[in-house]
Amino acid sequence: MTTRSTREDIVRAADDLFYRQGYEHTSFADIAEAVGISRGNFYYHFRTKDEILDAVIEARLAERRLLMERWEIEGKDPQDRIRSFIFILIANCDKIMRYGCPIGTLSGELAKLNHSSQGEANRLFTLFRTWLARQFALLGREADADALAMHLLARSQGVATLANAFRDEAFVRAEVQAMVDWLTAQAPETAPS
Amino acid sequence: MTTRSTREDIVRAADDLFYRQGYEHTSFADIAEAVGISRGNFYYHFRTKDEILDAVIEARLAERRLLMERWEIEGKDPQDRIRSFIFILIANCDKIMRYGCPIGTLSGELAKLNHSSQGEANRLFTLFRTWLARQFALLGREADADALAMHLLARSQGVATLANAFRDEAFVRAEVQAMVDWLTAQAPETAPS
Repeated sequence: MTTRSTREDIVRAADDLFYRQGYEHTSFADIAEAVGISRGNFYYHFRTKDEILDAVIEARLAERRLLMERWEIEGKDPQDRIRSFIFILIANCDKIMRYGCPIGTLSGELAKLNHSSQGEANRLFTLFRTWLARQFALLGREADADALAMHLLARSQGVATLANAFRDEAFVRAEVQAMVDWLTAQAPETAPS
Repeated sequence: MTTRSTREDIVRAADDLFYRQGYEHTSFADIAEAVGISRGNFYYHFRTKDEILDAVIEARLAERRLLMERWEIEGKDPQDRIRSFIFILIANCDKIMRYGCPIGTLSGELAKLNHSSQGEANRLFTLFRTWLARQFALLGREADADALAMHLLARSQGVATLANAFRDEAFVRAEVQAMVDWLTAQAPETAPS
């Protein structure tokens, strides 16, 4: 049990450090120090930073899946659920203003490193894309559900990038409102519940 | 003269490497190798990577200022000029799909490194923001010119991030068309020429 928990502690610390200071900039030593374990204990769990990266991506996927399940349960209709996605920008605004979006910045960093795990990291985008597309289909927009999902993902990513650059919460709130208005306009008729 | 040109070669090579593989991942040795000069010659021009970074940002600012001057000359009205901005996504599509937007990714990387030059790098965003806001004001939208500029910058950044993740040119083209349509809707009356 102790072994299992140490592994989880490593993944959690690495997830946080990759987000706050970047994958490339984070060393084994940084992660070991954050967890408070010896190098030996560390290597028992992970041999390479790539192995940790893959575990971090899996952990992020699992966490986001839970988030979406909650949105599905709590949202009374597809529009309500899509709004939950849009509101991530408000809920995580402080972190986004400091470090950007965890998914967008990791994908971008891995692209520049020409890292073989970029495809893995993009599964996070695909998870949101697929979920959003399903909600738009339920909203009666089967024909362009994927395009609407990509459009909303892009707007959300762009707001995160500029929030990180200008650290302007009023801008984030105005753009979130604009996305909600856009969403409302996508379903002029009453949405199916 | 030779000295001046070597300095420019270094800045150009660093600009390219920072864009393609990231600032953190690029070493003095990488840049020296790309330029084909000795370490000694290199240090004569730049002592630290931070000094090179600041020179790269200045070079990017100068280049973008020239670009905007050309848009001002070639664009027959503000709408036409703003369209030139939107079409960067098409003109640089291949590079954006591989490495993202040079401005957004540098700003994001420096934020994570908590690098003192992030403010400098954001001058690139501010340059576009100010220029776009001026065009929207000329379009008769003085009251919300800055908000419109930020909205368009954000959309453009978001498209760049997802283009980099999914490498889907059709998505980029569809979003560019959507931005052009949005722009047209911002000036229902004939724009002042």
